[in-house]
Amino acid sequence: MTETLHRIVLASRPEHKPGLDNFRMEESALPEPAAGQFLARTLWLSLDPYMRGRMSAARSYAKPVEVGATMEGACVAEVVTSRHPGFAAGDIVLAQLGWASHGISDGAGVRKIDPAAAPVTTALGVLGMPGLTAWVGLNDIAGARAGETIVVSAATGAVGSLVGQLARRKGMRVIGIAGGAEKCAYAVAELGYDICLDHHGADARRLGAQIAEAAPNGVDAYFENVGGTVLEAVLPAMNTHGRIALCGMIAWYSGAPAALPAPAIWGAILRQRLRVQGFIIFDHWNRLPAFLAEVAPLVKDGSIRYRETVAEGLDAAPAAFLRLLEGGNFGKQLVRVG
Amino acid sequence: MTETLHRIVLASRPEHKPGLDNFRMEESALPEPAAGQFLARTLWLSLDPYMRGRMSAARSYAKPVEVGATMEGACVAEVVTSRHPGFAAGDIVLAQLGWASHGISDGAGVRKIDPAAAPVTTALGVLGMPGLTAWVGLNDIAGARAGETIVVSAATGAVGSLVGQLARRKGMRVIGIAGGAEKCAYAVAELGYDICLDHHGADARRLGAQIAEAAPNGVDAYFENVGGTVLEAVLPAMNTHGRIALCGMIAWYSGAPAALPAPAIWGAILRQRLRVQGFIIFDHWNRLPAFLAEVAPLVKDGSIRYRETVAEGLDAAPAAFLRLLEGGNFGKQLVRVG
Repeated sequence: MTETLHRIVLASRPEHKPGLDNFRMEESALPEPAAGQFLARTLWLSLDPYMRGRMSAARSYAKPVEVGATMEGACVAEVVTSRHPGFAAGDIVLAQLGWASHGISDGAGVRKIDPAAAPVTTALGVLGMPGLTAWVGLNDIAGARAGETIVVSAATGAVGSLVGQLARRKGMRVIGIAGGAEKCAYAVAELGYDICLDHHGADARRLGAQIAEAAPNGVDAYFENVGGTVLEAVLPAMNTHGRIALCGMIAWYSGAPAALPAPAIWGAILRQRLRVQGFIIFDHWNRLPAFLAEVAPLVKDGSIRYRETVAEGLDAAPAAFLRLLEGGNFGKQLVRVG
Repeated sequence: MTETLHRIVLASRPEHKPGLDNFRMEESALPEPAAGQFLARTLWLSLDPYMRGRMSAARSYAKPVEVGATMEGACVAEVVTSRHPGFAAGDIVLAQLGWASHGISDGAGVRKIDPAAAPVTTALGVLGMPGLTAWVGLNDIAGARAGETIVVSAATGAVGSLVGQLARRKGMRVIGIAGGAEKCAYAVAELGYDICLDHHGADARRLGAQIAEAAPNGVDAYFENVGGTVLEAVLPAMNTHGRIALCGMIAWYSGAPAALPAPAIWGAILRQRLRVQGFIIFDHWNRLPAFLAEVAPLVKDGSIRYRETVAEGLDAAPAAFLRLLEGGNFGKQLVRVG
């Protein structure tokens, strides 16, 4: 085991698109836990689109990462040394250690993981924050119901792949939108989407026509993960009294263009009597037990599928994160750190 | 009583801003009611912003008025001749006779009005469609609650003036936005707004600063009647989990400019976790009895105030309607026809 702490810090804030030069690896001596703390070594780091927001100083729903500070992130980690009564060496935990090889924790917000119940990486994906996001957005925000038609963007991503499968299990018509033929084929063959449209190279008008064709009864619910052209293509297809669960807009995090002027957006919401609701999963942790009670058994018995893209080694995290922002991952993006 | 039917038809569709040349007066012989019908003469015609949408062929929530057809509209009318068992000569009714001196009806959608209960014009205003719009938007759509802060645009209009008074009665902090010093003074002195901001000549930035100052605890609910600069000024002041009831966007009906790009709009809804809901009162007629049960007594005992602007004669309707679109009315805009 290394005696050095490796961590990736925010070297500078991106002007528009982030690049590798916005990150820097730093090394320091391994810290010692004080009384009431434990030291853990990171096994897996989760990479998620929300981290893009943390890199910018602009107003967002959480404080930005300071320049020079460790990039934030959730990890599956193993306790190495504990001076905390609730944790022992060898425990596997879910903890916010950030983009780092090790971390000190006082146990706040840390959850122990049972490696026998499910692969530990699922705590970062299908049974973790992305999974809860999918379940809350589908049920509590979009109010999705059997017999309705739903569109899911980023259909094979960590969030979207579960939205699609849960919607299908509800008895909905499920239309996915994903980037590339391989993802679309996977969405239909493995995740059970009725159809999946490839947005690569499509403009809003053509994509809109494809959506209209794929949804002969219109779209009742839209789980929005990406923004940009996809959002603008789905909007006109929404049925009267449709609901849009606004979860992310990764396409706009780095300044993608937008065609629709403000009056057209508000006008569509008014005329089509839509309910558009933004949500951030950090407001909904209280739903975790209900989510796990429903979904964990489905993951265990194989009814719910998930897919992971693994980058090897902490130093691979920045490039993997940049690929994630471009849709280059397939399913949940992880970094194998330890 | 005249033996001629006068009606105002849509002469042409407006390119951008409507003008007098989009309307034309036509005359014809008074029609005779068939069996099961009655003939009524219009006493009062209601002018409402939704009529702007009916003049255009663009997709909207209702069919457009055809070129050459009578402009649509709700009227308070008196039955002249009846061959309908449910209506007798002399009955006062609320009916969709349009911009016309007389009309034939089979009774569908017609409501009898008791002139002893309240002035008959209230059936077109505070106790009619605009009043129900205010009550549904405040309670069912915006989910307004005691102790919260609400912003109401078009604060002294037919809808806004009731929203403000009902919100005040709920125990909310009520911030109005209206066009001109006279309307703002009336909003505070007569309608009980805590403060009313004049949007005339204000840009979104200055108006935004005034809103922020007027709402030290932020804005929890926004009753949106106008769109344009006002909407763009309120958006940044919305609290986390705020609600926007999207009722109208009169400023954009005729092509007012919009500054905010699409990513900023969707981004605000996402980051501030807003719930934005468009609604059209025609979906909510089932709420009329509950609305009248609560509000009619308050109008009768003078607790709820209302104001009317009256144009004299059917031929004054087009100019009065164009003034309404510019905010030139004060309270409910009516035309005294009969």
